[in-house]
Amino acid sequence: MAEQARAIRTRRAILFAAAKIFEERGYQAATISEILTTAGVTKGALYFHFQSKDDLAQGVLSSQDQNLVLPERPSKVQEIVDIVMLHTYRLETDAMVRAAVRLTMDQQAQGLDRSGPFRTWAMPVLERLEKAQAQGELLPHVVPVETADVIVGSYAGIQSMSQALTDYRDLVTRVTALLRHLLPSIVMPSVLASLQLGETRATDVYREATANLPEDERIGVRG
Amino acid sequence: MAEQARAIRTRRAILFAAAKIFEERGYQAATISEILTTAGVTKGALYFHFQSKDDLAQGVLSSQDQNLVLPERPSKVQEIVDIVMLHTYRLETDAMVRAAVRLTMDQQAQGLDRSGPFRTWAMPVLERLEKAQAQGELLPHVVPVETADVIVGSYAGIQSMSQALTDYRDLVTRVTALLRHLLPSIVMPSVLASLQLGETRATDVYREATANLPEDERIGVRG
Repeated sequence: MAEQARAIRTRRAILFAAAKIFEERGYQAATISEILTTAGVTKGALYFHFQSKDDLAQGVLSSQDQNLVLPERPSKVQEIVDIVMLHTYRLETDAMVRAAVRLTMDQQAQGLDRSGPFRTWAMPVLERLEKAQAQGELLPHVVPVETADVIVGSYAGIQSMSQALTDYRDLVTRVTALLRHLLPSIVMPSVLASLQLGETRATDVYREATANLPEDERIGVRG
Repeated sequence: MAEQARAIRTRRAILFAAAKIFEERGYQAATISEILTTAGVTKGALYFHFQSKDDLAQGVLSSQDQNLVLPERPSKVQEIVDIVMLHTYRLETDAMVRAAVRLTMDQQAQGLDRSGPFRTWAMPVLERLEKAQAQGELLPHVVPVETADVIVGSYAGIQSMSQALTDYRDLVTRVTALLRHLLPSIVMPSVLASLQLGETRATDVYREATANLPEDERIGVRG
């Protein structure tokens, strides 16, 4: 048991080092030996957990899929808003999530399959859009698979713009503006009127999602 | 005159080489000597045109602002749609525009000021939103400066998602879907009904914008 805990800690240290090096040097230029030095682990330990640089990048990419469970809501559209807001909060506060998002958006990382995260982000949104449609929350013309991709794709750009212009200081404001522009084309007016979209929603949702987690699991790596 | 033409050609060759190397290696890892080799010019020629790697990157970034003039339309919202569609066409077909967009989206290019292009993209959109507002095309609650940033930011993400998933093969479809999701929150229904938004709009607008240009200026660098 203690050994397993140690293995988890080592794996986490390696991933954190990889995230740091990918962020500093870009995926293309990063080397495994730099990651080894930063992580302070042996080569054997690293290769026990990860086979290659690509494997490390995939590890960073999937580390953002932390198992934060949001409670079910009567409105599935509210659940989508909350997923977006939770991700926004984590992007602001968690260095590992930031590294994963940057890797995903690195259009110069040739040979790295960046399609995974886009698909992973779209899935929970699509699932809830389908439920929302079934219970009559959506406008009649909405095609959930198209709308899920529009939400995920546009969010990806909004966060990138916020990073370039203000290093994420205006992220919540920009994300809220995006949702106010998208949702009226997706959701019935009556649903729209009762959505909680305010700027404090990101913090509120994060608190709710982590209320039952032990302290040290709340944030992967503080940014 | 011949000398000036030669200088323009040299500058263009250097920028093309820089775009290629930034794309292959990422901004961080790219070196000026690689750019020199690819461009096949002397060090003196390069430093005559560009002072530094950052200067080269800014050159690539601004080369996308090619002076393609679209005719004025009665609807300023249609002009916004056409700017977006023209950029979409160029992104699909012009390697230099692609390189500029990738540099802009490279969240790992530390030290490179990537805010310029976001601002440059937002400006023509903002200008037309303000005119559209003045002539009554917009919904009453719209704040042009906010909406311009939502359009530009979300477009940036949609193109990135299209590149990651299909190497831009579905770009026009995704951009059209984005506009169909955004415009109903921005534009009066009567304006919406007469907008030309179809998937052939990108090609049509590009043809119109380049009809009066000499052949060799039509596309900076074919991709």
